[in-house]
Amino acid sequence: MPRRGRRAKRVVDAVAQLEWRDVVSPYAPMEILDASQIETIVSGALEILETNGMRFLEPGSRDRLRRAGASVDDESLMVRFDRGLITESVNKAPPSFSLRARNPDRDLEFGGRHHVFASIGGPAFVSDLEQGRRPGNYAEMCDYLRLVQSLNIIHQEGGGPFEPMDLRAESRHLDLYLAQYRYTDKNCQAYALGGYRARDAIEMACIALGTDRDDLIANPAVLAIINTNSPLQLDIPMTEAIDELAAAGQVCCITPFTLAGSMSPATLAGTLVQQTAEILAVVTYAQLVRPGAPVMYGSFTSNVDMKSGSPALGTPEYTKAALASGQIARHLGLPYRSSNTTMSNCNDAQAAYESQMSLWGSVMGGAHLINHAAGWLEGGLTASFEKLIIDAEMLQMLAETLRPIGLSDDELALDAIREVGPGGHHFGTEHTLARYASAFYAPLISSRENFERWQEAGSADAATRANGAWKQLLKDYEQPPLDPGIDEALEDYVERRKLEIQQ
Amino acid sequence: MPRRGRRAKRVVDAVAQLEWRDVVSPYAPMEILDASQIETIVSGALEILETNGMRFLEPGSRDRLRRAGASVDDESLMVRFDRGLITESVNKAPPSFSLRARNPDRDLEFGGRHHVFASIGGPAFVSDLEQGRRPGNYAEMCDYLRLVQSLNIIHQEGGGPFEPMDLRAESRHLDLYLAQYRYTDKNCQAYALGGYRARDAIEMACIALGTDRDDLIANPAVLAIINTNSPLQLDIPMTEAIDELAAAGQVCCITPFTLAGSMSPATLAGTLVQQTAEILAVVTYAQLVRPGAPVMYGSFTSNVDMKSGSPALGTPEYTKAALASGQIARHLGLPYRSSNTTMSNCNDAQAAYESQMSLWGSVMGGAHLINHAAGWLEGGLTASFEKLIIDAEMLQMLAETLRPIGLSDDELALDAIREVGPGGHHFGTEHTLARYASAFYAPLISSRENFERWQEAGSADAATRANGAWKQLLKDYEQPPLDPGIDEALEDYVERRKLEIQQ
Repeated sequence: MPRRGRRAKRVVDAVAQLEWRDVVSPYAPMEILDASQIETIVSGALEILETNGMRFLEPGSRDRLRRAGASVDDESLMVRFDRGLITESVNKAPPSFSLRARNPDRDLEFGGRHHVFASIGGPAFVSDLEQGRRPGNYAEMCDYLRLVQSLNIIHQEGGGPFEPMDLRAESRHLDLYLAQYRYTDKNCQAYALGGYRARDAIEMACIALGTDRDDLIANPAVLAIINTNSPLQLDIPMTEAIDELAAAGQVCCITPFTLAGSMSPATLAGTLVQQTAEILAVVTYAQLVRPGAPVMYGSFTSNVDMKSGSPALGTPEYTKAALASGQIARHLGLPYRSSNTTMSNCNDAQAAYESQMSLWGSVMGGAHLINHAAGWLEGGLTASFEKLIIDAEMLQMLAETLRPIGLSDDELALDAIREVGPGGHHFGTEHTLARYASAFYAPLISSRENFERWQEAGSADAATRANGAWKQLLKDYEQPPLDPGIDEALEDYVERRKLEIQQ
Repeated sequence: MPRRGRRAKRVVDAVAQLEWRDVVSPYAPMEILDASQIETIVSGALEILETNGMRFLEPGSRDRLRRAGASVDDESLMVRFDRGLITESVNKAPPSFSLRARNPDRDLEFGGRHHVFASIGGPAFVSDLEQGRRPGNYAEMCDYLRLVQSLNIIHQEGGGPFEPMDLRAESRHLDLYLAQYRYTDKNCQAYALGGYRARDAIEMACIALGTDRDDLIANPAVLAIINTNSPLQLDIPMTEAIDELAAAGQVCCITPFTLAGSMSPATLAGTLVQQTAEILAVVTYAQLVRPGAPVMYGSFTSNVDMKSGSPALGTPEYTKAALASGQIARHLGLPYRSSNTTMSNCNDAQAAYESQMSLWGSVMGGAHLINHAAGWLEGGLTASFEKLIIDAEMLQMLAETLRPIGLSDDELALDAIREVGPGGHHFGTEHTLARYASAFYAPLISSRENFERWQEAGSADAATRANGAWKQLLKDYEQPPLDPGIDEALEDYVERRKLEIQQ
C-alpha cells in the first residue's frame, strides 16, 4: 500500500505543530484607559460626527442616510449624524457572531474572549529566501493557500495572500475564491473592492456550502475588510461592498487607515477619536442597510515616522492603540479586529519584535480577529513564505501562553519533588516520563541546539529554518476533499462570471 | 574650541535614544492565577520545607538555622522549617528598597510598579558580527561597560557582561568592580561567588560612594544574584555571599535555576512550588543573618526541550512562569526579579521573539528587576554587542508602551480633525508640526525605509544596523567624571587585595 508507506515517511519528516484549536483567553484584557477616558474618546467621536460629519461619496448611501434622519449636504457630500441615530444603530449590531467554514470543524466564533488568527491578505508582492521579492502569480498564490490550510494555528484565510498579477485584475477575485474553496476548508475572507466582488463571494459561498442566501443570513460565512479613506471619507467601491454584504447579513469589518500624523492627528487620543468616528458612521450606515447585520470595530491605528513621513508599524503607539481600541470596541459592544504588523523588509529581529509588539497589543487588547496574523512583511506590501512560518510559531506560542497553568495534585508534584530530593535530576523520573510528549510547547522552527552543534550544522537562522518548514509542509500537503459536484458548480460560476465581466 | 566642534559633529552622527527614565507602569500586572491558586502553590512550598526540607551545604548556615528552631539533620545536611519560622522571617524582609548609584541621578527603586532594566551578567563568551563568538577579554569587557553606560534605557549593570578570560579567575572580580566604577556611574551588580567577592564589592562601594558600612546598611548599594543549586540545595560559595551581603544589609536576589523537567518537575505548578520553596528557605536564612536585609524573589523558571534535554528559554512556559511568579512574589510581599532570555545562537527572528515573550512576561508580571534585559544570546553563554542594541530598542519600546495615552483637549484634537476635514492630510498642520520632535517613539535601529531604498542602501538587517549603532555609541562615549582621589583609592584597594589573594 503506497499510501501507508507515504504516511510512515511523513511521520519522520513532518513539521510538528499544534492541533487546530479554538483560542480562547481565560484572562481579562489589559486596560490602559479608565471608564471616563473611554467615554471622552467616544464622546469626541460623536461630536465630530454631529458637528462636522463624514463624507459619503456614493450618492445612494447619502439618500439612505438622509431618509434615516441624518443631515446631508449634497455639495460637500458630508453627512452629519445626531447621537441618537448612531446609538440606536450601534445597538442593533450583534456583540458576537459565528462564521461558517466549508469544514464545519473549522467554524469560527467572533466575540467573548475568542481570538481568530487570519493569514495575510492583500499585498502585491510575494517573497521567499531563494527568489527574493517579486510580483505574485496565481500558482504561487495557490501554494500559499495550501500552507494556510496546513498550518493549524491559522483559523481563517485573509482574503488572498497576494495579488496574482498574471491574472486579469477585474476577475482575479473569482480565481481567488475558487482556489480558496479548493485548497482550504477553512473560512476565507472575501476581497470586497466593489459590489460585484462582494456579490460573487456571497454567491460562491452559497454554492460551496450547498445553501442559499436566506440561510446565509442566519449563518454567515463571508467576512470582508471595509477600509475608510481616512480622514473621514467612505469611497464608492467600499460603499457598494457594504451594500452587498450587509444586505446579505454578512460581516463588514470596518477598519479606518488612521496613521497618526498623516491620515489623522499626530496624537493617539485624536486618532482614536477619528477612528471611532469613522467606524460609528459606517456602522450606522450598515445597520440602515440591514438592521442586525454583523459588523466589527477594526483598528489599524499606527503612526508615521516623523522624520520621513513613511508609516511606522509595530510601534509602542501601535500597541497602545490596539489595547485602547479593544476597550472602546467593548464599550460600544462591537466585536474587535486588530493586526500583526511590521515595517521590516526581511525576516530579521525587527520583523519579529514589531510583530510581537503588535500581537501582544492585539491579544492583550482582546482582539476577536487578528488580521494579517501570519505572513506580513514590508508594511504589508509583501507576503513572505518564511514570515508565514515565523508568525505561525509566534501565534502557537501565544496560544500556549493563554492555556492556564494546571494545578491538580499530580501537577503540583509534591511527591516527585520529594522523590528526587536535593541535588537530583527530574529528567528520568516517572513523573517526567509520563509527560514526555506533551509537557511543554514543541516549537515549529526555534532552535535549542548548543552553539557548536548549531555552527557545525550550518549556522541556520530562523528564516532559513522557516524556509525548510514551508517546503516540507507543501510536500506533505493534502487537499481537503470537496464534493465534485460543488467543485464543478463553483467552476461553472467562475466561467460564467468571467464571460459577463469581459463583456 | 575643539570641544564645541566635536559636539556639533556628534549631533549629526549620534544614536538618538530616549532620555534616562524611571520606568513605572501605570497598569496593574496581569493575573493568571486566582488567590486560592497562589495559596495552593505557596502552601505546597511550605509543605515541602516542612516535611522534606532543603539541603544547606555550609555547616555554619545549618548551625544558624538550628539555633533559630529549624530541624537539622547533619548527616543528610537537610534543614526542615516549620511554617511559623518561615512566615515570621519573610515578614521581616522589606517589600521594597532603594539602591544607590555613584551618580545620585541614577539611584534605583525596587518595588511598587517600578521596572529596573539590568544589562547581561555572567557569560563566558562575547560576540559581534565581525569577529563572531570568542572568549571574552578585559578590554572588550570595558567597551561593553561603556555601552551599558551610554544606553539610557539600561538602569543597572548586570555584574560583568562576560568573563575577562585574560585575567586571573580568583581576582578578576576586582578588575570588574574597578571598571564598573570607572566606565559607568550607574548602579552595578556584584559578582557574588563566594564570600570574599561579595566583601570586596561592599568595601569598594564604600570607597566609591565615600561612605561606610553603617551608612550602607541604611542606604544599600550592592545587589548580587544568589542562585540555589536546584533542586533544593544551597552551596557553600553562595551561602558565604549571603552571609556577607545580608550582614551588610545589601541585597540578595535569590534565584533558583528551575528548568522544569530537569532541575524541577516537568510541570509548571510543581516547578513553581519548588522555586518558591527554595526561595523561602534562603530568605529565611538571610533574615536570620540580618533581620530586615533586603531580598528578592527571583524567578528563572523555564523548561527543558523534551526531545534533547537542553534548556528552552523565552517559551510560553517561561512567559507563564514569569506572570505567575510575580503573583507569588506579591503575595509574599517580596520584590520580584525576572529576565530577558533566548536560546538563539544569533541575532535572528528567534532571538527577538523569545526575548519579547520573556520581556512581556516580565513586564506584565510586574518584575521589579528585569535581569539580563539587554545583551543575552545563546542561552546566556554569550554577551552579544548587537543584541545589546536590539534589546535596548525593545526595552525602549516597552517603556514607551507603559506611558499612558494623553487625553487633554489638545491631544483629543477635535479642532485639528475639523480643520483637515475629509480626504485631507495631517502631516503639515500646525497641530502636527507642534509635535514634530516628540509625538512618537523614534527608534534606535528599526528601519522604516521602503523596500527599494532599503535594498539600494545594502539590505541591512537589524543586526547589521545594531552593529553600526554600538560602534557609533562607543565613538561618542564620554567617561563619567570620577573624583581622582576615589579612583586612586579604588585602585589601591584592588592592588592590595590582589596581593592578598595571590598569597
